[in-house]
Amino acid sequence: MKAVGVVVEYNPFHNGHKYHLDQAKEQSGADIVIAVMSGNFLQRGEPALVSKWARAEMALYGGADLVFELPYAFAAQNADIFADGAISVLAAAGCESVCFGSEAGEIDSFISTLEFLANHETEFQAKIKKYNALGYSYPKSVSLSFEALEPDGSLLDLSKPNNILGLQYVAAINRHGSGLRPMTIKRKNAGYHDEHFSSETIASATSIRKSLFSNGSNMESIQSYLPRSSFHLLMRYKKHYGRFHSWEDYWPLLKYKLLQSSPEELATIHEVEEGLEYRLRENSLHATSFMEFMEKIKTKRYTWTRLQRVCLHILMNVKRSEMQAGTAKYLRLLGMSATGRAYLQKNKKVLGLPLVSRPSASKDLLELDIRASRIYSLGLDGDSQDRLLKEEFSQPPIQIQDKKTSC
Amino acid sequence: MKAVGVVVEYNPFHNGHKYHLDQAKEQSGADIVIAVMSGNFLQRGEPALVSKWARAEMALYGGADLVFELPYAFAAQNADIFADGAISVLAAAGCESVCFGSEAGEIDSFISTLEFLANHETEFQAKIKKYNALGYSYPKSVSLSFEALEPDGSLLDLSKPNNILGLQYVAAINRHGSGLRPMTIKRKNAGYHDEHFSSETIASATSIRKSLFSNGSNMESIQSYLPRSSFHLLMRYKKHYGRFHSWEDYWPLLKYKLLQSSPEELATIHEVEEGLEYRLRENSLHATSFMEFMEKIKTKRYTWTRLQRVCLHILMNVKRSEMQAGTAKYLRLLGMSATGRAYLQKNKKVLGLPLVSRPSASKDLLELDIRASRIYSLGLDGDSQDRLLKEEFSQPPIQIQDKKTSC
Repeated sequence: MKAVGVVVEYNPFHNGHKYHLDQAKEQSGADIVIAVMSGNFLQRGEPALVSKWARAEMALYGGADLVFELPYAFAAQNADIFADGAISVLAAAGCESVCFGSEAGEIDSFISTLEFLANHETEFQAKIKKYNALGYSYPKSVSLSFEALEPDGSLLDLSKPNNILGLQYVAAINRHGSGLRPMTIKRKNAGYHDEHFSSETIASATSIRKSLFSNGSNMESIQSYLPRSSFHLLMRYKKHYGRFHSWEDYWPLLKYKLLQSSPEELATIHEVEEGLEYRLRENSLHATSFMEFMEKIKTKRYTWTRLQRVCLHILMNVKRSEMQAGTAKYLRLLGMSATGRAYLQKNKKVLGLPLVSRPSASKDLLELDIRASRIYSLGLDGDSQDRLLKEEFSQPPIQIQDKKTSC
Repeated sequence: MKAVGVVVEYNPFHNGHKYHLDQAKEQSGADIVIAVMSGNFLQRGEPALVSKWARAEMALYGGADLVFELPYAFAAQNADIFADGAISVLAAAGCESVCFGSEAGEIDSFISTLEFLANHETEFQAKIKKYNALGYSYPKSVSLSFEALEPDGSLLDLSKPNNILGLQYVAAINRHGSGLRPMTIKRKNAGYHDEHFSSETIASATSIRKSLFSNGSNMESIQSYLPRSSFHLLMRYKKHYGRFHSWEDYWPLLKYKLLQSSPEELATIHEVEEGLEYRLRENSLHATSFMEFMEKIKTKRYTWTRLQRVCLHILMNVKRSEMQAGTAKYLRLLGMSATGRAYLQKNKKVLGLPLVSRPSASKDLLELDIRASRIYSLGLDGDSQDRLLKEEFSQPPIQIQDKKTSC
C-alpha cells in the first residue's frame, strides 16, 4: 500500500482541501492519504475554530485515511520548524511522497530555487540580516533579499505564502534525507488570505471563518464552500460546545497572565525576547479585547503572526527550554478510515516512531499537547469546558467506515 | 490630638462597626479614630465585596477619621502576621490606644491569658505540635492545646474567633513594644460567623453578604443593618461596576493558573507546601466552580480560610520570597475626614513610616498592593474592569467634610 502525505490545518476543511486530497491521491498514485494536522492551536498562533477531534473527523470524511497530530512543539512555530515536524511525522508514518498546494503549481521551480539559494547562501543571509536591521519583519526581509539576488523568471515567487511554505517542506525533506518525493499542485482559485468568496464552490478558510463569526446564525452562506460532512460537523460542534473558538475567548486569561507575571518570568517564555515582555505587560493593562491589544503591540518589526504566537506561548506558559523541536518523537493518532486502519495494522512494526493512540499512557511525552488541550477547553463555558477537557483522555482515535475494501 | 486605632475589614461597614467606632472613641477619650483596613483582598483569603476605595468611604462616613491600607503582605496572612502589620501601622500613625471588639469584652483576661501562655510556652507548643500531627488544623490545635492546659475561668475562651484575634493584637503590641494601650469592647449581638440576622439593627457582615448575593435585586432586606451612607455606597458600587466581587468571578482565572503552572512553579508560591501543589492541580481539572473546587480540596488538616489564602496567593502569583512580612514599611492613605486631615498636617513629621498618598510615586514599594488591585479588577467585565483598574493610580485619598472643627 502506497501512501501520500499532506500537511494540513483544516480550519475548517473545505472544498479546496477536498480537491487537494483528491489530486494528491491521483497524481501520486497512492492507495491512501496520510494527513499531519495541527492540534487545537495553529501555526499562526491562534486557536482552531473547532477542536482537533472535530477537524480530524472532517478530514476523514473528506478523503484522508489517517490523521496524525502535529505536536504543539512544531505546530505553533515558524515555517521551517513547522515543516521539520510535519515532514518527520509523514516520513515516520511511511509515506512515499508529500503533496502540497502552492501558487507555483509545479515542483521544478522549488528544486531550482533551493539550489539557487544554496549557491547564494552567504549573500542571501547577509541581505536578510541587513533588511532585518532596517526594521523589516523576517518574512519581508526574506522576500526582499531574494528579490535583491535577481533570480531569473524560472524561480519561485517568494512573495506568495504557499510557495514559501512549500519551499520549507522541500528543504525539510532535503535536511532529513527522508527519501520522500515532493509533489505540488496548483491551488484552486481562492488566495490563502482572501477574505471574500471568489468562486461558487471554492473559498479560503479565512473567508469561511470570517463568515462563521460575522453572520452568526446565518450559516447557509458558507454551505456551498464546504463538503456536507464538514458543514454538518461544524454545526454539531457549535451546538454541542456552544461556540467556535477565537482568541477573544482567551483574552481574559492572557490579560490575567500578563498582569500577574513579572517581566523576568515572561522573559523565560518561548519567543519572548528583545524586551518584548515590557511592551506586552504595559499594553495589556488597558486593552479590553485581544484585537485592541494586538493593534497596540504590533510594529513593522514583528509580524502579526509572530506576535500571535508569542501570545499563545504566554497563554500556554511554554518555556524556551520546553521547545526543543528537532524532529517529531511520536505519532499521535487522531483518526483513521477503515483503509487507514488496515494500513496501520500492516505497517505497525515498520513505523519510524512510537504510535500513540491513548494519551493517558504517554502523559510525559505528550505534556505540551495535553496542556494545549486543557487551555483550549478554557475558551468554552462551564459544562462545555468540562466535556471538551475530558475528551483529551477519553476520546479514542476517531474511526469511520469507508467503501474502499482495501489491500 | 489623641488618636485611637482600630483594625478593620468593613466587608461591608454595618451598624455593629459604627457602634465599635463610637465606643472606641468614647472609651479611649480620643479626638480621632484611625482605621487600618485590609485592601481589596481580605484576611480570609477572599475578595472584598467592593473595592478598598468604596470601603474607605464607608468608614469615613461611619466615623473614622483616617483610613490606611493594611498592605497585602499582612492582610492575607494568618492572625499573628496580620496583627503585626496592623499594630505597626497604627503605632506609626501615632495612635495612643487600640480598641478591638471581642466576645470577652474586658482587657484583663487578654493580659492574663498572654501571661499564662508565656508561663506554659514549652508545654503549649508541644501540645500544638501533637494535635497538629494528629491531623487537626492549626487553629483547632491551638484551641485544644489551650483547653488541655486547664486554664482557670478568668482566662479567655479561645474557641471564640474575636478573642483569638484580640489576643494576637495584644501579643503584637507586646512584641513591638510600641507603647499602645490595648482596649476592648464587647461585641454586640451577632456572632462573627452568624449567617442569619439576630436583631433588628445589628447583623454580622457574613449574613449581610449572604443577603446581598442571594436576594439579588431585593436590597431593602439589609437596609436596617447598615448606616444609610454604607447602603448608598454599596448600591452605587453595584450600579457603577456591575456587581459585588466574589471568589466565583476569579475562578476561571484560578483554574487557568493551576492548569498552566507546573507543580514546581506552584511550589514556589507562598503557603503552597507539603505537596499541596499536586492536590490543587489535580482537583482543579474538573471543578466547574470555586465552591466545588474548595469542597474537593478541603481536609481536616487545612482550614477553609487557610486554603482560600493559598488560592489567593496562587491567583496573585505571590512567591514565598515576596512575603517578607515583619512590620509595615509604609502608610498608604486611602481616605480622611477634615479632622483626619488636620491631624495629618499637624503630625506629618512625627509619623513612624513614610506616608504614601500617590502610588505612582512609590511603584516598587507598593508592588504587591498594585498587583492585588489589578487582579481584583479582573473580576469585573470589560469597561468596568478598566475603570476600576485606573482608580488605583488616579484616585487620590478620599476626603469627606465633617462637622468637627478640630484641634
